[in-house]
Amino acid sequence: MKRFRAGLAQINPTVGDFEGNVRKILDGMGEARARGCALVAFPELAIPGYPPEDLVFKPSFIEANLRALDEVARASRGLSVVVGFVDKRDDIFNAAAVLHDGALAGVYHKRYLPNYGVFDENRYFQAGTDTPIFTVDDTTFAVNICEDIWYPTGPATRQALAGAELIVTINGSPFHAGKAHFREKMIATRAADDLVCLGFVNMVGGQDELVFDGGSMFFDERGELIARGRAFEEDFVVADLDLESVFRARLHDSRRRKEKLQATPAVTRVALSPLPAAEPVVGVAARVEPPLEAVAEVFRALVVGTRDYVRKNGFKRVVIGLSGGIDSSLVAAIAVEALGRENVTGVTMPSPYSSAGTRRDARKLARNLGIEFQTAPITPIFRAYKRSLAKTFKGLREDVTEENIQARVRGNLLMALSNKFGWLVLTTGNKSEYGAGYTTLYGDMAGGFAVIKDVPKTLVYDLARHVNSRAGRRLIPDAVFERPPSAELRPGQCDQDTLPPYAELDAILEAYVEEDRGAQEIISRGFAPETVRAVVAMVDRNEYKRRQGPIGVKLTPRAFGRDWRLPIVNRFRER
Amino acid sequence: MKRFRAGLAQINPTVGDFEGNVRKILDGMGEARARGCALVAFPELAIPGYPPEDLVFKPSFIEANLRALDEVARASRGLSVVVGFVDKRDDIFNAAAVLHDGALAGVYHKRYLPNYGVFDENRYFQAGTDTPIFTVDDTTFAVNICEDIWYPTGPATRQALAGAELIVTINGSPFHAGKAHFREKMIATRAADDLVCLGFVNMVGGQDELVFDGGSMFFDERGELIARGRAFEEDFVVADLDLESVFRARLHDSRRRKEKLQATPAVTRVALSPLPAAEPVVGVAARVEPPLEAVAEVFRALVVGTRDYVRKNGFKRVVIGLSGGIDSSLVAAIAVEALGRENVTGVTMPSPYSSAGTRRDARKLARNLGIEFQTAPITPIFRAYKRSLAKTFKGLREDVTEENIQARVRGNLLMALSNKFGWLVLTTGNKSEYGAGYTTLYGDMAGGFAVIKDVPKTLVYDLARHVNSRAGRRLIPDAVFERPPSAELRPGQCDQDTLPPYAELDAILEAYVEEDRGAQEIISRGFAPETVRAVVAMVDRNEYKRRQGPIGVKLTPRAFGRDWRLPIVNRFRER
Repeated sequence: MKRFRAGLAQINPTVGDFEGNVRKILDGMGEARARGCALVAFPELAIPGYPPEDLVFKPSFIEANLRALDEVARASRGLSVVVGFVDKRDDIFNAAAVLHDGALAGVYHKRYLPNYGVFDENRYFQAGTDTPIFTVDDTTFAVNICEDIWYPTGPATRQALAGAELIVTINGSPFHAGKAHFREKMIATRAADDLVCLGFVNMVGGQDELVFDGGSMFFDERGELIARGRAFEEDFVVADLDLESVFRARLHDSRRRKEKLQATPAVTRVALSPLPAAEPVVGVAARVEPPLEAVAEVFRALVVGTRDYVRKNGFKRVVIGLSGGIDSSLVAAIAVEALGRENVTGVTMPSPYSSAGTRRDARKLARNLGIEFQTAPITPIFRAYKRSLAKTFKGLREDVTEENIQARVRGNLLMALSNKFGWLVLTTGNKSEYGAGYTTLYGDMAGGFAVIKDVPKTLVYDLARHVNSRAGRRLIPDAVFERPPSAELRPGQCDQDTLPPYAELDAILEAYVEEDRGAQEIISRGFAPETVRAVVAMVDRNEYKRRQGPIGVKLTPRAFGRDWRLPIVNRFRER
Repeated sequence: MKRFRAGLAQINPTVGDFEGNVRKILDGMGEARARGCALVAFPELAIPGYPPEDLVFKPSFIEANLRALDEVARASRGLSVVVGFVDKRDDIFNAAAVLHDGALAGVYHKRYLPNYGVFDENRYFQAGTDTPIFTVDDTTFAVNICEDIWYPTGPATRQALAGAELIVTINGSPFHAGKAHFREKMIATRAADDLVCLGFVNMVGGQDELVFDGGSMFFDERGELIARGRAFEEDFVVADLDLESVFRARLHDSRRRKEKLQATPAVTRVALSPLPAAEPVVGVAARVEPPLEAVAEVFRALVVGTRDYVRKNGFKRVVIGLSGGIDSSLVAAIAVEALGRENVTGVTMPSPYSSAGTRRDARKLARNLGIEFQTAPITPIFRAYKRSLAKTFKGLREDVTEENIQARVRGNLLMALSNKFGWLVLTTGNKSEYGAGYTTLYGDMAGGFAVIKDVPKTLVYDLARHVNSRAGRRLIPDAVFERPPSAELRPGQCDQDTLPPYAELDAILEAYVEEDRGAQEIISRGFAPETVRAVVAMVDRNEYKRRQGPIGVKLTPRAFGRDWRLPIVNRFRER
């Protein structure tokens, strides 16, 4: 029986950290050797980190990436290695190096460059035109990069027809909720359609707003999943691929395959030197990690995104303003999971309008989580502002101005702690608030990372329940769930004075923001016309705020981030 | 003699303002009729405004744009009209409609979609494939859109070979300093190479960070400029084109032209109905507006960018923190020029460390400009913060934390005025500060529009001198030019304690930010290695601040805006 053992090194690289990324790649190669793999694959642009964005315009960055590749190539003795890097010819390419037994043996250039959503690859790269396949001993494999495998008519079909038994696709496929399942079905289809074994290796970890969820996989030529790695963690996925079965599957329609092959453009065939015989291979039981349940998946994405943003930026500790509300409670719980309770400080900053209940719950939450807890009252500072503005504001009623001053005093206090102690401020606004502009610029929006900015309020509650259920106890107190949401910036204030009920708001926001539905279309789904128009107008007129907000983890197909490019000057008003 | 009178309507549309844009287009058609033009052209995407960014993903936006085009088409009786809109077929296209005598007669789809710098057109549009030319009576013309004409092998050559005597290129060509001259030479070359008359119509006005500088032009078939419109203002440019001269110029190598034509892909020929004979045409003396001198051009861009951002967002008045320094003085002068002195309020917010000199100069500047002037001391508020943090900060030395608190108190006071009175806050940071991160997030960076964020400090002085020289008097007091720059946030502070001298800093920033030079390369230009490394590190580690700053007018080939997409998590360090 012809078996081929391959490994997928699901690593967490950091953009620009050539030394660290090379170390992870060398470690992965060591693991591959230890596990008897003939081939090991690393993610898309694993060498420079992904996405490097405008860094690729720096010649010094490209050169550092090529030097790092050299180092990896030299270390590839006894293995075939597929690893992502930026290739430089007459232009630059999003490329996969095929390293073989100590040297660079071939290069594949990504053919399909995504230029939608969060992707700008036409800005950076030239598209590839060549379709190589590689033969080592009696095994033929080929490489794809990310987007290439999403097209039924992409290079994989041609490579399989030309004899590739294994296609390795290397990916930097950013997470959004529900994507993993969809991606798995797509790859299974591709394997079955092309009668080929498919190894999908994905990055893991956070890079700015993006989180990569790993979940690397092997499929056989029937499209059956034979191995799946962990989600949101580094992992090494191994499988013994039954290439004889690929051969048999192709036999029965070999004539049709030959005709098809003649009709497709030629591939480039690269013959690799035979590798020294490996240790007698003992069969591996491929591991299939179970997929995560929907809310757990989002929670993991938030934890990993937060941890990596904090640590990859060189921070150790974070500080969070605790209001006693559900949003800040959830953010604190995520931070504890991401960084450990010893690295989280909660600060309560009561105002004249803070209730005894919220003050008590903030303290209780901090105690439950075991984090440091500080109190900094804002009333004296708020009064000093009012005195300073008294002459100018004489005779005018208090309004949103005074509410914003309170929020901004809190923002300043948190930033002062950040400046003095080197703690990163985590902000606590959710997607419903960012969408509707129900936030104060430089106030509750002040901070380095907006953990839950892509979490609608309704999902905030689900995640908070998930936190308690994981812990097996009420980390987030019951009262926090039960109290009607309020910013507590004026007497008796309640979110629902200003906003529609959150269930309604979130549904309208999803249709308008994520699906680009027009007001008329949303109304036709059964929402009150005046509510829809009010929400749409809120989204439109608060673009200036979102533009100045911190980044945060992308969770939905469309977050307020790289994939939301709306002008601030915009007179278009939906009817 | 065969003459053809054409007009270029250099208008200032607003993104999404279909009603307003249609009104401007109908007015331009009226002007064309009044001036006896047979054809009039409007800028790229004049109907929806440019660039509409992700608004084009909204089906309701595309439909509104098509309805607006219908209205314009019906109003085109007696004229040929070229106007930019978004065409919708199986995909959407950046398109030019050719309207003729009351109906849509043809459409041209942009062929070359820029996807670099500030442009993301591959994100939005499908590229065109068709190359139409239009004949009305005995005149043949063709259309290009913006980028198309930048390529020597673009559609214009084919269109000219196939008989087009006039090529109209419609543009949304954003300003950067020095671009107008370069563009003019390029278009002249294209006209001479293709032996064709060329009408270049460009948008004017501000849209978010972009400013369009107009300067619409006609060239004859020798590449001679025959008309040039005003820069930075709406204008209507007319010329009588001598098409007999085009005919004569082509006669002498007509055989070679025929051969070339046979070798190029076919064009689509559209015959338009004859237009009713116009009034007997009296020759027009085409007007050639003089180009602007370098500093004056930048000043105009700042004025127009500021005016349009403020007004198109529905604001009337602005407020500016006046420190008595050169940056805020310049911003106040720009605001007065843009909005009128009655719409500008200056606020001085002295701290314990403000000198008598800067306080006096702030007042003097406000008086010279004739703007409203307010004083709001920050010391009592600053003290309240210190008291609130005293316990937490016990035993720790004062540092940048206390400096930032002062800057943030100022930011909050300006935002309070903004909230209470509906004034837009203009911030006063320059490009040197944004580059080096010598700014306080939520402090001096707090506001709606960062007027001079793309102006290096050295150019700030040139612009300030320009302000005084235009006024013929010292609007900005001498002392403001002479005093060493300081943030005045601690005793005896001076910018040059922290930063290299500005002449050096600006040169290094230009090389690193605008030209993507590596540290080694900049050092090789003769700068001290430790200075270069320090500046490069400052730029790299302050990306998080720039990401949360307000937008401002783009002036250089690379501003900290849409064309600067650097990751925050970035471990790449130049050696």
